[in-house]
Amino acid sequence: METVEQRVSGLGLIMPPAAAPVANYVGAVRTGGLLAVSGQLCFGPDGALVAKGKLGAGVSVEQGQEAARACAINLLAQVKAATGSLDRVRRVVRLGGFINADPGFLDTPKVMNGASDLMVAVFGEHGRHARTTIGVAALPMNAAVEVEGLFEVD
Amino acid sequence: METVEQRVSGLGLIMPPAAAPVANYVGAVRTGGLLAVSGQLCFGPDGALVAKGKLGAGVSVEQGQEAARACAINLLAQVKAATGSLDRVRRVVRLGGFINADPGFLDTPKVMNGASDLMVAVFGEHGRHARTTIGVAALPMNAAVEVEGLFEVD
Amino acid sequence: METVEQRVSGLGLIMPPAAAPVANYVGAVRTGGLLAVSGQLCFGPDGALVAKGKLGAGVSVEQGQEAARACAINLLAQVKAATGSLDRVRRVVRLGGFINADPGFLDTPKVMNGASDLMVAVFGEHGRHARTTIGVAALPMNAAVEVEGLFEVD
Repeated sequence: METVEQRVSGLGLIMPPAAAPVANYVGAVRTGGLLAVSGQLCFGPDGALVAKGKLGAGVSVEQGQEAARACAINLLAQVKAATGSLDRVRRVVRLGGFINADPGFLDTPKVMNGASDLMVAVFGEHGRHARTTIGVAALPMNAAVEVEGLFEVD
Repeated sequence: METVEQRVSGLGLIMPPAAAPVANYVGAVRTGGLLAVSGQLCFGPDGALVAKGKLGAGVSVEQGQEAARACAINLLAQVKAATGSLDRVRRVVRLGGFINADPGFLDTPKVMNGASDLMVAVFGEHGRHARTTIGVAALPMNAAVEVEGLFEVD
Repeated sequence: METVEQRVSGLGLIMPPAAAPVANYVGAVRTGGLLAVSGQLCFGPDGALVAKGKLGAGVSVEQGQEAARACAINLLAQVKAATGSLDRVRRVVRLGGFINADPGFLDTPKVMNGASDLMVAVFGEHGRHARTTIGVAALPMNAAVEVEGLFEVD
């Protein structure tokens, strides 16, 4: 039976090192069986933002989806750093998606699917999560997408 | 002694079917005694948005309150679908309110009261919750309000 | 060994009374070992907002940091009101930072450090938290910053 870690390899996902804290916060905090993971920006494996700017004003839905997927991969890197292995994840409980959006942009859920799809590709049915997606006025470094997560872990 | 389900009937609330997932996420996820419910848009019983557009730019506070109330009813529909009965709710722990707002709009809490009041009408003291309300740049389908919830359940 | 309450005194923090609920919600809800605290605005000890308006459009980063710090102090006031003593806090699990921001403002994390630093000043290593920071279109009363919190408590 394939483990989650094997599935991640099979998908060819490049897991970056978990982003180091740059201030008085940390990437993830465990409380009981829950792991709260900090909002992750859409940094790619090369350390650069996958997409910069606003959806509806220069960033396309496709670029936004790639960005959301990158955020999700960065969430997994934090989970792995905190727990030692993605096989310790019992359930993706909730994702919060923050889309850097022009006030007229309406397709935030489509963008966020980039993150949701990655979770199900990695965890299967256990990857299905509750989700809230909103369009926000500003994100750090003008990142196009930020995603936070809550995980049930062993 | 009146059950919560009886109270819902007494209030004449029309509980829509819980919105079906349209992507790789679900309406609610249970972890231990907590139920995290996805952000719900302000769909009414007829399946149309109760209010569309921005508070402070076309949508009135009263319309926003109706929209927030509709979001709250949709949260209840998700809770019922996940647990079988609203009588399994021990406490509404937290609501997150996302108001589609013009940057100059200041009355987001008043709008969100439409959701908070519904929870207390249904659950009494157990309906009192922690709450965060923010004005956001964009919501799916240009909905006026989105509300997410965290519930303690049996 | 210094208690957290002694450290708060040593820091000269003026803890305001926990803001009373003005609607059908409450300042904090406990569920199991978790305390969910409502979003707190940047009221100072005199009851006035520490900063009003938008970052990137009139409010400076330094003013924003002071505002975030005030929000954090107000979170502590809610925790104390709910638990009786800040020494009951085992861990600051998560902070959500909402910065009233002009769409072009990129320094939201720097602003939020005002809240994060206060938590570590008060709780030491137990004050390090998961964090999500976003720039929002509108906040109640035009407050510059709002912060919500999740705490693990005894």
